[in-house]
Amino acid sequence: MTETTENKDLVQEDVQAENEVEETEVKVEEQEVELTIEEQYEAKLAELQAKLDDEENRHLRLRADFDNIRRRNQLDREAAEKYRAQTLLSDLLPVIDNFERALQVEATSEETASIVKGIEMVYRSLIEATEKEGLQIIKAEGEQFDPNVHQAVMQEQDIEKEAGVVLRELQKGYMLKDRVLRPTMVSVNE
Amino acid sequence: MTETTENKDLVQEDVQAENEVEETEVKVEEQEVELTIEEQYEAKLAELQAKLDDEENRHLRLRADFDNIRRRNQLDREAAEKYRAQTLLSDLLPVIDNFERALQVEATSEETASIVKGIEMVYRSLIEATEKEGLQIIKAEGEQFDPNVHQAVMQEQDIEKEAGVVLRELQKGYMLKDRVLRPTMVSVNE
Repeated sequence: MTETTENKDLVQEDVQAENEVEETEVKVEEQEVELTIEEQYEAKLAELQAKLDDEENRHLRLRADFDNIRRRNQLDREAAEKYRAQTLLSDLLPVIDNFERALQVEATSEETASIVKGIEMVYRSLIEATEKEGLQIIKAEGEQFDPNVHQAVMQEQDIEKEAGVVLRELQKGYMLKDRVLRPTMVSVNE
Repeated sequence: MTETTENKDLVQEDVQAENEVEETEVKVEEQEVELTIEEQYEAKLAELQAKLDDEENRHLRLRADFDNIRRRNQLDREAAEKYRAQTLLSDLLPVIDNFERALQVEATSEETASIVKGIEMVYRSLIEATEKEGLQIIKAEGEQFDPNVHQAVMQEQDIEKEAGVVLRELQKGYMLKDRVLRPTMVSVNE
């Protein structure tokens, strides 16, 4: 029986993998039986190895998903943090507009001048609070018209200035950090 | 050779698992050789099965971590969203305080009255914008003192009112949704 292993390769039987090799009914000739068992074991081993490979691949995929979701969450968190005040700041823009309009009065009495001075301080503290959260005025007057941050609502002509230059601001525009919150409404030189 | 499987249990040899069963030198008696190979296969199968079990456990743990991190991120996102305006609102509280102080003037001329009226509209639009983001005034005057939302800065005595009741608000307090942004500074009845 020393040739057992060498003979194995010669037997090319279709091996049905059984759950319990020990219970296989052995009705064929001796050498064949031994090789069949080996082949059955090999099939079981191959089957297990395939399952293991599958499992390892499944793990790698999940690991990759895991890393992706972690990275995406990090980016989402950073963006949410960066623009967290966007809604409130957008709602404050008309408040600031009205504030500026209300402060454009000409004070003729000392009483009025004193009130306006007090209100101007409130206005400045409001602007400071919004600047702290990243609100910035968009530069417009005298700048080259930029459709990314300016909205042209009319054209005018000033022959002393370059064509395409912003002549007047009709409504202030604002950025929240690198995002345009509201473009400046402008008149542009023809 | 039909008793092969029955005999297997009787042979209690210390089987050294070899990488290549086919190359094992077979020098012992026939039945024993066959059983040794089986045992070697069984050892390999057990080893692979153990690896597979490990891998499945590893996968389950990673899956659980994955679900946890997803759940936690969801909660983080909801909290960040809920209180997103907290910093700006905190910075706006002194602005609102100063606004209210500035509006407490007695207008003696028509000009002043007109300006104050315009500014009051700006004030109301500011308050509306903050309310939209969840800012609410904490009730204080006449309420039972509540250390969660009130900060007692002095005691006074009003025998006509219950002990422990808030007599006066010295500075307004605010909630952001269910969070105390600033407690109301109050005087409490002795």
